[in-house]
Amino acid sequence: MTITITAFDRSPDGGKGLARDTRVRWALEEVGQPYDVRLVSLRAMKEPAHLALHPFGQIPTYEEGGLVLFETGAIVLHLAQHHAGLLPAEAGARARAVSWMFAALNTVEPPILDLVTARIHEADQPWAAARLPLVLERLRARLGQLDARLGDAQWLDGGFSAGDLMMVSVLLRLRPSGVLAEFPRLAAYVARGEARPAYQRAFAAQLEVNTRP
Amino acid sequence: MTITITAFDRSPDGGKGLARDTRVRWALEEVGQPYDVRLVSLRAMKEPAHLALHPFGQIPTYEEGGLVLFETGAIVLHLAQHHAGLLPAEAGARARAVSWMFAALNTVEPPILDLVTARIHEADQPWAAARLPLVLERLRARLGQLDARLGDAQWLDGGFSAGDLMMVSVLLRLRPSGVLAEFPRLAAYVARGEARPAYQRAFAAQLEVNTRP
Repeated sequence: MTITITAFDRSPDGGKGLARDTRVRWALEEVGQPYDVRLVSLRAMKEPAHLALHPFGQIPTYEEGGLVLFETGAIVLHLAQHHAGLLPAEAGARARAVSWMFAALNTVEPPILDLVTARIHEADQPWAAARLPLVLERLRARLGQLDARLGDAQWLDGGFSAGDLMMVSVLLRLRPSGVLAEFPRLAAYVARGEARPAYQRAFAAQLEVNTRP
Repeated sequence: MTITITAFDRSPDGGKGLARDTRVRWALEEVGQPYDVRLVSLRAMKEPAHLALHPFGQIPTYEEGGLVLFETGAIVLHLAQHHAGLLPAEAGARARAVSWMFAALNTVEPPILDLVTARIHEADQPWAAARLPLVLERLRARLGQLDARLGDAQWLDGGFSAGDLMMVSVLLRLRPSGVLAEFPRLAAYVARGEARPAYQRAFAAQLEVNTRP
């Protein structure tokens, strides 16, 4: 059955791989599934046809036969459960990998998005400079805990999994701020993720969309 | 195999059910699994023994035989996958329910936590009053989308699922602010969740811990 995902026709990051379709493309490449992409404009994302697929008017969505999914975490988990390559075989290890998926999205990403809010969306607000240190402090505390757990391991729990795919994707958003570089082990972990051939193909595919004339 | 979760020895909310162990207790009650609780102090949560279970020093954790899980979303999903009562039988409907779990935690909860940050953690900061309207505006936009999708349905997608358990739990955090009441259909949805006998048992169990002399 053909898999179709949606992505920005022009990503706000211009193709740096930070739009969330990159996470789904990466998962599809890891499990070796071909896919089609339907590009959506910022305007069309808020219209009824797209809202029927994604209640919050975002990308990516996932269509496969009659199945429609939204939320990157759910799409990656669906792929990981139905194809080999993103979850270990043993039941306990699978559940732990899923813990890391949720940790990436619900525990590590929120303070990273707070930084994006503070530095970009609220950059011109009168409180921006005074508030930034507080946002950075909370973020560094969280990253310090992640760094302590990862230690010198290659991946979060045994071999590469959907948990790492999501954590690397979330941490990548930090790079433009310079904060990732403050944690050399996390920076090296992210670099290992980016070095995977599946990530490289996913990145190239989203970049191609964003650099078309 | 005995299931053991961790919870605050004294919850910061004093037993209003907002601590995340309530979500896991609710799931355990829905699937009819007995469980033990190990209470942890705020101080002990940051010590090595607890950090070995939960890298971010939080509650709840989940232990079952040799398996250790953290992240509420992962624990609830684990229970839902291994016991009847929280996911529909049909594969597509199961995947959609998981979409709603991720939507609750990654799309709806972040702007709710932003409000908690603005109203509580940053309440005494000089920018608090000026920034609050912006935080509320973002939150109301997100809730409006959720309200539009739910419409007059009882639950988000067919029968009650782990997606509803998580969404109701996330929305409950809004009630003290008064914002939930601005969306009567969402408020009624939350009330339907709270009325479930399994939720009532979970709420009573966490309250009992927090009102012991």
